Amino acid sequence: KRLRPALALLAGRLCNASVRRLLPLAVALELIHMATLVHDDVVDESPTRRGRPTVRARWGDQLSLHTGDYLFARSLVLVAQYQDHRIASSLARVSVNMCQGEIRQMASEYDVRQGLKDYLSRIKAKTALLISASCALGSLVAGAAEEVARRLGAYGYYLGMAFQITDDILDLVASEEELGKPVASDLRQGILTLPTVYALRSSSRKEELAAVISGRHLDEGAVTRVLELIRESGALEFSRRVAARYLEKARRKLEGLPKGQPLEALVAVADFVGHRRF
Amino acid sequence: KRLRPALALLAGRLCNASVRRLLPLAVALELIHMATLVHDDVVDESPTRRGRPTVRARWGDQLSLHTGDYLFARSLVLVAQYQDHRIASSLARVSVNMCQGEIRQMASEYDVRQGLKDYLSRIKAKTALLISASCALGSLVAGAAEEVARRLGAYGYYLGMAFQITDDILDLVASEEELGKPVASDLRQGILTLPTVYALRSSSRKEELAAVISGRHLDEGAVTRVLELIRESGALEFSRRVAARYLEKARRKLEGLPKGQPLEALVAVADFVGHRRF
Repeated sequence: KRLRPALALLAGRLCNASVRRLLPLAVALELIHMATLVHDDVVDESPTRRGRPTVRARWGDQLSLHTGDYLFARSLVLVAQYQDHRIASSLARVSVNMCQGEIRQMASEYDVRQGLKDYLSRIKAKTALLISASCALGSLVAGAAEEVARRLGAYGYYLGMAFQITDDILDLVASEEELGKPVASDLRQGILTLPTVYALRSSSRKEELAAVISGRHLDEGAVTRVLELIRESGALEFSRRVAARYLEKARRKLEGLPKGQPLEALVAVADFVGHRRF
Repeated sequence: KRLRPALALLAGRLCNASVRRLLPLAVALELIHMATLVHDDVVDESPTRRGRPTVRARWGDQLSLHTGDYLFARSLVLVAQYQDHRIASSLARVSVNMCQGEIRQMASEYDVRQGLKDYLSRIKAKTALLISASCALGSLVAGAAEEVARRLGAYGYYLGMAFQITDDILDLVASEEELGKPVASDLRQGILTLPTVYALRSSSRKEELAAVISGRHLDEGAVTRVLELIRESGALEFSRRVAARYLEKARRKLEGLPKGQPLEALVAVADFVGHRRF
């Protein structure tokens, strides 16, 4: 984990900034990510996160709400020290998109008519844009040329898309112990991710699949049946191919950037995202 | 209402900026205020606000949470167009304080040991700093001298303190129709405001008062008795005097600023805050 600060540090190191210079940005990015997690746990009513009790479970919704707001505001205070209006402005735009992504996700719960495009634009807003900004802002803070920041931003965007798709696949296939939360927790909340959206289009039993999901309140039997239908449809292989294609695009964006440890690490991150099991 | 945008416009007009130039800031300030209201309504579990159903009552906690986050992020995107890092930085600092104020308020619920200082620092964080920033940023966006921005910021701070104290008095004395919410709603939630804090120190029956409040879960009888003890203690007169003193300080900060309609309006706002009934 700690993906966002790691990417900001690597992108900044690639452009010759000191860790000291990059640290406020790196911390701010992790705080923003944490703020969204704290608020998501309120919304999802999650008892645990990464195998530990959530802020919500320990101190209730009210404190979680203020804690999330606080973390976000604190991150903006942190980046204010760069005295560069482009940073706050970029983070603000990303945050607007993240909220819109969450709201659109709520609106599309149990909606079996949604397509690939709906899913992709949602994970772009929810996940990929902040990861993209982590890379772009890392190089920006390092004083890199616009062209380099754009390239690293594009790398982050493709990486972020692959990261979220992999996350969504794992939610359906990894074990409860590996995930630290129940299997298919998205599905149980009505959140349809790439494999489900694909299966709803391509499964030979798509009518049955749509009927079960549209029924809402999926019990264990329903979840098992949906997972079966998804597996049979080839949706997992399809989703893995989509993730791999994004990672290939991510790697290609790194071509021509200055050689060295930071670049090698950015390549390694792309490889890791493609192979992670939990 | 619409106090914050009005103040930003007046402070900016005083320093000769056009309304067009000031509008994004004014809208951003109202959005930030709205964001806190939407989140407060989640926390307070309020069914109505200004006599109308809250976002929470209509669409639930989850959407309210994202709506609040969205409004705040949207406000930052709005002010980004000034390309002046001081604005986002100031709003971020104010927001951190607002969250801390809310968290401290939660921590002090039903706490009869809290003093005047606790109360004043809490309303500074919760209310006065954003009103202060509204005035200071209005003049900043207008390109005013630092000294003018500081003066207007101080005016806003004193005005904001008086505004919140008046609000807290009204919560205890105005009728349900005037407030659009139940009388003594703060008290019912365990939030002790200036009159209560004063009465807990100065009432001849302070032990009884402390015992009733410490009992938590105040029923109608308990609320009526607390209101009686507060009235008897002279706490309402004391609180009105404190508010009047802040307003006097606010007015004095306006002395020496350029004469004209905007200045007259700022004086009128201070007069209004002192006399509003709901």
